[in-house]
Amino acid sequence: MKEVAIGLIGAGTVGGGVVKILHTRRNTLGTGDVGVRLARIADKATSRFAALPVGDAVCTANAEDILNDPSIHIVVELVGGATFAKKAVLDALSRGKHVITANKALIAEHGPELFECASKYGVSLYFEASVGGGMPVIKTIREALAGNEIVSVKTIINGTCNYILTRMTAEGLPFALVLAEAQKNGYAEADPTLDVGGGDSGHKAAILASLISGGYVPFNAISIEGITAIGGEDIAFARELGYVIKLLGVINRKPGTGTIDVRVHPAMLPSHHILASVADVFNAVLLEGDAVGRILLYGRGAGEMPTGSAVVSDILDVARNIASGIPIRIPMDYYSTGHVVPVQPIEKITSRYYLRFTVTDRPGVLGSIAAFLGEEGISIASVMQREGYADDSVPVIILTHWAKENGVRRALAKIEKMDVIRQSTRLIRIEE
Amino acid sequence: MKEVAIGLIGAGTVGGGVVKILHTRRNTLGTGDVGVRLARIADKATSRFAALPVGDAVCTANAEDILNDPSIHIVVELVGGATFAKKAVLDALSRGKHVITANKALIAEHGPELFECASKYGVSLYFEASVGGGMPVIKTIREALAGNEIVSVKTIINGTCNYILTRMTAEGLPFALVLAEAQKNGYAEADPTLDVGGGDSGHKAAILASLISGGYVPFNAISIEGITAIGGEDIAFARELGYVIKLLGVINRKPGTGTIDVRVHPAMLPSHHILASVADVFNAVLLEGDAVGRILLYGRGAGEMPTGSAVVSDILDVARNIASGIPIRIPMDYYSTGHVVPVQPIEKITSRYYLRFTVTDRPGVLGSIAAFLGEEGISIASVMQREGYADDSVPVIILTHWAKENGVRRALAKIEKMDVIRQSTRLIRIEE
Repeated sequence: MKEVAIGLIGAGTVGGGVVKILHTRRNTLGTGDVGVRLARIADKATSRFAALPVGDAVCTANAEDILNDPSIHIVVELVGGATFAKKAVLDALSRGKHVITANKALIAEHGPELFECASKYGVSLYFEASVGGGMPVIKTIREALAGNEIVSVKTIINGTCNYILTRMTAEGLPFALVLAEAQKNGYAEADPTLDVGGGDSGHKAAILASLISGGYVPFNAISIEGITAIGGEDIAFARELGYVIKLLGVINRKPGTGTIDVRVHPAMLPSHHILASVADVFNAVLLEGDAVGRILLYGRGAGEMPTGSAVVSDILDVARNIASGIPIRIPMDYYSTGHVVPVQPIEKITSRYYLRFTVTDRPGVLGSIAAFLGEEGISIASVMQREGYADDSVPVIILTHWAKENGVRRALAKIEKMDVIRQSTRLIRIEE
Repeated sequence: MKEVAIGLIGAGTVGGGVVKILHTRRNTLGTGDVGVRLARIADKATSRFAALPVGDAVCTANAEDILNDPSIHIVVELVGGATFAKKAVLDALSRGKHVITANKALIAEHGPELFECASKYGVSLYFEASVGGGMPVIKTIREALAGNEIVSVKTIINGTCNYILTRMTAEGLPFALVLAEAQKNGYAEADPTLDVGGGDSGHKAAILASLISGGYVPFNAISIEGITAIGGEDIAFARELGYVIKLLGVINRKPGTGTIDVRVHPAMLPSHHILASVADVFNAVLLEGDAVGRILLYGRGAGEMPTGSAVVSDILDVARNIASGIPIRIPMDYYSTGHVVPVQPIEKITSRYYLRFTVTDRPGVLGSIAAFLGEEGISIASVMQREGYADDSVPVIILTHWAKENGVRRALAKIEKMDVIRQSTRLIRIEE
């Protein structure tokens, strides 16, 4: 039985989880076919080692000790960030070491360079933990659904946003208050921008879009809108209309166009939709394959042990590859700058829309709004007008039938020039 | 690039799906690392071939043509049943061919003999399609959650039963009527015994229990109760109490006892439970791992294309194993008669219970029932008594707190000797 040596860079939250799992499973992991040994652990914060069951692993402050050790077969990069992590990953790959990472920004933004380097040196780069924490999203797409063309993905992929929206919905609390509490409880970072601004979801959507399209979908081409502008009133109106608001990653293949529809934005889902019941910090990925139909994965998308579980799954896979003498089991050649898949601009999508206008309460206003929408061929599915706000303005909510986004934008531009419009209009896309 | 030759035995529903997917994906499946060629197809009903995109595959009425062909690397057994299928699988394995099957009865009842044979001849036996159709349940347990001890499984794993219960719940229809319609629509077999009696769910639960326990859990040791006795009134009472009734496979590891709790029975789930929203023919598997926490897989558990998708996933995995020269990637040595894991008798479980008594409406009856329950230390969580039936008997519904099943059974035996008891008592376990 071959024994595979692991070098772990980064003993923070996820790294700690990996050390704990490898320790707990040391007598059973890969039993019968391959042995896995945690040989070295590097972290600048050397005080972290004392709290971990590091066993016989050599602990060091210096990642170079791992990169320079020729006996290390697999480098596990759990540092995060893009600068040092990228350098370390490229360094490891070019020394013929396999790499496992949980770093979504790295894969989404620098994937082509990394996969090209891995291919050049005949090693693998695995990244299950980069999307969906403990849920086996990458493995399911690359292996379990290999017989499928995956035509669409809808995903709740950021636990912080889902936690905030769940509490706003359940308790009627405003965004800022829930965010502050989430920060206090450790459910949100001190700087929450990457989460609530949608960037984290965007990184994950870019990776999933690349995997299902068999090409590279550049992160910076994706339209991303976070949850910071979601108001309690929109959540309440959505509920009255039978919907819930979630931050969604949406991916639709566009066969024959050479493009792909990829976007991250708040979306209204019918309350009976399977994703509508995904609450708190849980994540879910709804995949639609041409053979398998709809498949849902649901679980914890972050955290020490769930994410550690995904890293250990990769470790065992790569160790089995090494033991078999076939270092690259699943080629990633398509994830390259030579196979860029252009993203369809969001202005060109077709969707249903929730529009909340804030208007002066005066006869004829609704008619004027409807006329501008009609000029763009936008058909109204339902209208709701309620009691006014304190300043005598009133909210008018319109749900549209399917319409082109660019038409909706043109209509809104005209409508917002009317002097009865008191605030900019809130637009939320409706997904089915 | 190595090309792997496939021989398919059985071109019925699932076999047809496999042929279609291999045809559709012929230019992309395993691109870059391994080629897959459908070389031969055998089916006694040779008329089936005409409707399928068989390409260059040699079609035959005789499975022997596949078993005797030394160029075939992988035999895909999609015949079903246990007699011929078992003989064909053993024959293929002992000739050094890898085997892929969707046959849950075969794996659950004869797994040890088959895996021992595969091990002896140095080949693999894959069976993803045997549990959960297109959902990657086996792969998730064996690979993605390899770093976990899976402590429990709760699963809705029979689409026919879930469809029937969903319609009974939504439309208030009786079992027999919904079953008859399901048979007419092709959602239930002409002989529905294996589905509605729980045997099919039992086969799948036995396989999952074996996988998570690292031993062989014999199918015939599992307590199995189907849905034929579920009445519309129990569904209605459950709903009033905030529950739904589902046919569940329940597996709990019992660390330190050397046994495992495995059972199939109707269960009441709180209506907010994630499994409660799994409707119609959909299946779901809720796995709880010690590291990853709760993970749910949801999808279509049966059907031509979903099950075909799972078979094709296995084909690609085994083809990659063959190409790498390591025929057995995931050892199954534990799935043997040398590693039997005894099943805890259902009388020894602890659960919460829904009990529906049918009694003569007379003062003091409820007190007597409560007294008999109290004698066994069974504490009552809630009681509901309603208007009487036409024959002047009345239903008394009691939900218990956690109690030992054998105590509940002893109490019911005493209660049913009272002359006010008009029908045998309905017992439904409550799962959280």
